[in-house]
Amino acid sequence: MGAEDSRLDEVFDNLLTTLRNFVKENRITHDEYRRAVAFMTEVGQKGEVSLLCDVFIEVSVDAADNSGRSGTITTIEGPFYVHDAPMLNSPCVLPQRLDESGPVLLFTGTVLSSKGEPLPGAVLDLWQSDTHGLYSHFDIPKNEAPYNLRARVTTDRQGKFDVQTRLPAPYEIPKSGPTGALLAALQRHAWRPAHLHMKVEHSGHRTLTTQLFLKKDPWIDSDVVEGAVKQALIVDPVMHDDADDLHRRNFSEPYFTLSYDFLLEPAISKAA
Amino acid sequence: MGAEDSRLDEVFDNLLTTLRNFVKENRITHDEYRRAVAFMTEVGQKGEVSLLCDVFIEVSVDAADNSGRSGTITTIEGPFYVHDAPMLNSPCVLPQRLDESGPVLLFTGTVLSSKGEPLPGAVLDLWQSDTHGLYSHFDIPKNEAPYNLRARVTTDRQGKFDVQTRLPAPYEIPKSGPTGALLAALQRHAWRPAHLHMKVEHSGHRTLTTQLFLKKDPWIDSDVVEGAVKQALIVDPVMHDDADDLHRRNFSEPYFTLSYDFLLEPAISKAA
Repeated sequence: MGAEDSRLDEVFDNLLTTLRNFVKENRITHDEYRRAVAFMTEVGQKGEVSLLCDVFIEVSVDAADNSGRSGTITTIEGPFYVHDAPMLNSPCVLPQRLDESGPVLLFTGTVLSSKGEPLPGAVLDLWQSDTHGLYSHFDIPKNEAPYNLRARVTTDRQGKFDVQTRLPAPYEIPKSGPTGALLAALQRHAWRPAHLHMKVEHSGHRTLTTQLFLKKDPWIDSDVVEGAVKQALIVDPVMHDDADDLHRRNFSEPYFTLSYDFLLEPAISKAA
Repeated sequence: MGAEDSRLDEVFDNLLTTLRNFVKENRITHDEYRRAVAFMTEVGQKGEVSLLCDVFIEVSVDAADNSGRSGTITTIEGPFYVHDAPMLNSPCVLPQRLDESGPVLLFTGTVLSSKGEPLPGAVLDLWQSDTHGLYSHFDIPKNEAPYNLRARVTTDRQGKFDVQTRLPAPYEIPKSGPTGALLAALQRHAWRPAHLHMKVEHSGHRTLTTQLFLKKDPWIDSDVVEGAVKQALIVDPVMHDDADDLHRRNFSEPYFTLSYDFLLEPAISKAA
């Protein structure tokens, strides 16, 4: 039996013991069990397994997996990641509709080792909602550009990235399915504060999965994903509304700038 | 907030605490978490939520829900119950194909209160596999009779039932989906010993969900559903092969008889 088999055996055995103890300690009735099975059946049928787990459980996985980690703090990946976004070199504009709405955001920064060395050729894999709080590939709005507001951006020779995108918006996670029905039964709202998602990758370094949140968002203190927002990940983009500047940039409305540096810790040795 | 709401709040809160502690104590990695989410997504897509839960968890729910119960011992319902089987009066023959194969089983007995009083008008809701180990409504064999080998049989004025059916057969739970893949990864077989399922109902009494298992079954000591087989539920049908008797009954091969009495405990008061 290989190491992977014995890990599965151990973890699954522990999970069963944990769940059976939970049933016993909470005196779960057969009627409650059948309702739970029916709920999970609907979660499966509606394609919400990742949504449900990411809302309620992923924060604890992130905490367990990244305990003691150096560099930029992590947070959850969430259910809206797509692994094969287009690869672009910095500087770049994220793929978007010809008439994409919402304020322009100029997002810049440097990817660094946790010792502070710039990392040229690092990849910033970005995904975010549009100004209506919708994600390409999941919500299907009209006239969607392929991989709308998604890209894997490679840093330049100084480890810098320079990306033109749009400010994300707060949104409610899907409410029409079983996850939404559960939140309603728990008398909880379904809002996530606006955020940018990113995975930051560089060979020889451990991949960083995190999000940046907007300070002035109305839901910044009450994310439906409890524990996903962390103080060090809250940013406050600067608004620019100088008429000459806007004219020079050919922007019809005020835009925002945000600078953030990402620090990656060295890769974990593969040895057990 | 009603009693039901506060029960949901309490149980769900306890479940999250339990699962988050499990993640922490087992140092679940994000990669393992994503594999678990992908597994549960497939379980949902293939319609195996009930199968998976009933194989691994329902035994503990049965134990918790029926702790201290009087009367006949319970066991799991499993994933193959259908609630609206035809209603028949005893004596009767279970619905079956014109050419149903497998040895005939004459199943008789009495439904009683736990004090030993016969219960006329009790309902014995029966379901079982055919001789190939297949269930109507789930496995779809050719030429299936509606509600094949399923019925709700009402006891007579003496509380007795008399049902002609076929001996069930051992079977492997579905192996082509994710539950089967998990069992394979755990290096466990997928066999259930042959059994008859029943729910026994009578107004004023608590419904009994149980199964009867065949003593000589090769899997009687290694049911894939660990803990479902209980000593008091193991029966040994008697074979009859007297040529005159078979001729008189117009049976072309030996048949079996089985007698079993079911004892129901009084209904639980609805008061909290």
